[in-house]
Amino acid sequence: MKAVLDYLNTNEKRFVDELGEFLRFRSVSTQPRHRRDMAKCAEWLGRHCRSIGLEARVCPTAGHPVVWARTRLRPGRRPHFLIYGHYDVQPPEPFELWHSPPFEPTIRGRSLIARGAVDDKGQIFAHLKGVEAYHKTDTDLPCDLTFVIEGEEEVGSLSLPLFLRQHRRELRCDGVIISDGDMPAKNLPALTYGLRGVAAFEITLRGPSRDLHSGIFGGSVENPAMALCQLLGRMRDGKGRITVPGYYADVRPLTAAERRQFRRLPGSEESHRRSLGVPRLFGEAGFSSVERVTCRPTFEINGLTSGYQGDGSKTIVPAWARAKITLRLVPDQKPETVLQATIAHLKRLCPPTVRIEISDRRAAAPYLVDPSGAQARAAMRALRSAFGREPALMREGGSIPIVTDFKKLLGADTLLLGLALPNANIHAPDEQLDLDCFAAGQRMSALLWQELAGPG
Amino acid sequence: MKAVLDYLNTNEKRFVDELGEFLRFRSVSTQPRHRRDMAKCAEWLGRHCRSIGLEARVCPTAGHPVVWARTRLRPGRRPHFLIYGHYDVQPPEPFELWHSPPFEPTIRGRSLIARGAVDDKGQIFAHLKGVEAYHKTDTDLPCDLTFVIEGEEEVGSLSLPLFLRQHRRELRCDGVIISDGDMPAKNLPALTYGLRGVAAFEITLRGPSRDLHSGIFGGSVENPAMALCQLLGRMRDGKGRITVPGYYADVRPLTAAERRQFRRLPGSEESHRRSLGVPRLFGEAGFSSVERVTCRPTFEINGLTSGYQGDGSKTIVPAWARAKITLRLVPDQKPETVLQATIAHLKRLCPPTVRIEISDRRAAAPYLVDPSGAQARAAMRALRSAFGREPALMREGGSIPIVTDFKKLLGADTLLLGLALPNANIHAPDEQLDLDCFAAGQRMSALLWQELAGPG
Repeated sequence: MKAVLDYLNTNEKRFVDELGEFLRFRSVSTQPRHRRDMAKCAEWLGRHCRSIGLEARVCPTAGHPVVWARTRLRPGRRPHFLIYGHYDVQPPEPFELWHSPPFEPTIRGRSLIARGAVDDKGQIFAHLKGVEAYHKTDTDLPCDLTFVIEGEEEVGSLSLPLFLRQHRRELRCDGVIISDGDMPAKNLPALTYGLRGVAAFEITLRGPSRDLHSGIFGGSVENPAMALCQLLGRMRDGKGRITVPGYYADVRPLTAAERRQFRRLPGSEESHRRSLGVPRLFGEAGFSSVERVTCRPTFEINGLTSGYQGDGSKTIVPAWARAKITLRLVPDQKPETVLQATIAHLKRLCPPTVRIEISDRRAAAPYLVDPSGAQARAAMRALRSAFGREPALMREGGSIPIVTDFKKLLGADTLLLGLALPNANIHAPDEQLDLDCFAAGQRMSALLWQELAGPG
Repeated sequence: MKAVLDYLNTNEKRFVDELGEFLRFRSVSTQPRHRRDMAKCAEWLGRHCRSIGLEARVCPTAGHPVVWARTRLRPGRRPHFLIYGHYDVQPPEPFELWHSPPFEPTIRGRSLIARGAVDDKGQIFAHLKGVEAYHKTDTDLPCDLTFVIEGEEEVGSLSLPLFLRQHRRELRCDGVIISDGDMPAKNLPALTYGLRGVAAFEITLRGPSRDLHSGIFGGSVENPAMALCQLLGRMRDGKGRITVPGYYADVRPLTAAERRQFRRLPGSEESHRRSLGVPRLFGEAGFSSVERVTCRPTFEINGLTSGYQGDGSKTIVPAWARAKITLRLVPDQKPETVLQATIAHLKRLCPPTVRIEISDRRAAAPYLVDPSGAQARAAMRALRSAFGREPALMREGGSIPIVTDFKKLLGADTLLLGLALPNANIHAPDEQLDLDCFAAGQRMSALLWQELAGPG
């Protein structure tokens, strides 16, 4: 492994230049005018994979192509791991807030600034460089690797599930590795072993057949906006607990070891409060902010719509009121069960003076991998060696639906090994990759295959 | 009086034709393209007043002119009454829902159909015809009369308070008569002796400095939309009572006589429910729908705005949430007192996790005239004779701010004598005046001056 790590060290500067080439492609998947840029970026990426000793194909889909690359077939049976990433990026707008052009990679201090620098071109590139080091130093890779690098992550990964289904035999693997997220701090790498799920729906309460004059009719008829406020208001008690019966039944309790891990994560409650700009934090009693956003389910109103919203006043009793709701779910909640219980509770509490409608139901499952399992421990060892720091175990509050697809379609758990620092400006102007994290990420990737599949 | 009533009877057909001329003017005050139509309508009305023996002036204002007409000065002191009305009308749109062109008056059965037929050209015209009958039959009017017919009622009567203030000496009077409202049924004329007031404000709860990703942050911060729902939801209890301390302190209790009167009004609870299209009626416990909409105060949400309102979902914790609120007030509530108590209550209950902002405060007082006073009894006698029916005493749920101005600036109470039937389609397509009510209204007006000021 010394040769591999030396190679990475020696070629650090060149890797940054190559990443710069990758970052110059305006691979904005959501903007139709960049369709050709998307295709050119995928072609470049396929060629680059071949140049580092991988077999690569650029696979068309109904949307943007998937770049599929893998180590050459070799005799014998080895573990097989899949590395997932994406070459598409968020739109760069608003341009005026960038300090350098978003598609002209610029180095400032130890940061490489460009759209996509960290989300996700820089992170997937670290894994490619890890493989390159094995190949160029003729070091034996103890496993087979497949890269699946899609072009639609920023627009909902619409084509990917079908791609996985079509190639599930060749893609079947012993584990998936994703570097497309955060690490807590420059001196604190982490393995993310859990994600929240999400369930969404829209609720509409309908009262009178039309908006009514509040003078002529007000007082003799339920106001649907008031009914909605009272109904939704009852969904959460004064201690921040959701009141839907059975809501917490399947929530896996936090272990003492987990809570100890979370206390290692940087950031005080006060700095969290200040960064959000709120007068006081609020959440479920008995949990820290980190625990609340990663390990506890929520009931969030994402939007409210009713009656007159323009300037001045309009003296009406509105005909209807609507709210968009999302529930963040945690292991081991089942989205459909929770959704059903929540909707049943709303219907039970809805007064008979209005009609209730539920629409736009959607759900994605939460995710949890055993942090004391063999693969998680292997990943922790790789992180420790690569960063020279004791890594943390963490969970994330967001949802990555594709992880559930990997489990379902390929039978594999996912290791989430994010390389983005909290100040990486993901989806924002001046997106930046820390070059030390980039280099450590390459080492981590190279070490990971030894830890996961090596003789050790 | 026989000569006066005979004159009205004999000329009934001609009066309808003249009203038709009045209705042909497209006097839509809110639409700038009808500015000339407004001026021509006011000029026509001034000429018409002169033709029936009144002195008339068309007085320019900052907006549309006021037509000011009065009986000739005569030696001796007589009571002086002011008749208020308006010649402007609501926009006729949507044209396609009219069964005849809105500015081509059309008779169907006993209805005259045109924009403004009842609101308010037909109603003010009935009073003009009553005066004409005195003048043309040389019958002595036992009082002096002043007509103030404005052109901005449908756009908020912006110029009228200044007009009243500028001419308060000449306009000072013993009472104001307004026919610009409803009567309960064709066989049930009524004196409206009370109006609700209104207080309005906007409430905004601000949480985080920006919309937050509900996955990354949800659960660790108050959701302003939820806080707003919980806060507003607490403003009304399960029995429909407003929970603001002291809210009902100044509410004048209904007397047994009033409740008896209201029970005479037509329309069942079931027909009210059906006309509103709600699955069940709702209001303050212990009161009928009629009482709820006329004699009890309310807390209404007129609009709700927060977060994402477009198609699909957006998984955010919104930065803020807003509601537009109106309180309908009843005698003897003082708008400023109630407004202050309500806002103080909201601020007291607002959680410390969000910031509360109150804006756009407005208020108009409720109104009540003693239904057993001399003028009210005189009006009841005139209604009884004119319609040949026992009139009802009623209150209205809406607000007419100008009534408060008459009291404040001219020192006079107002008698509200509406001639519009419930099916008059006010502000709607196929607005219609019942010709029997039109004729009875002329008789009522003629008789009123005898009852108010006659020797009887």
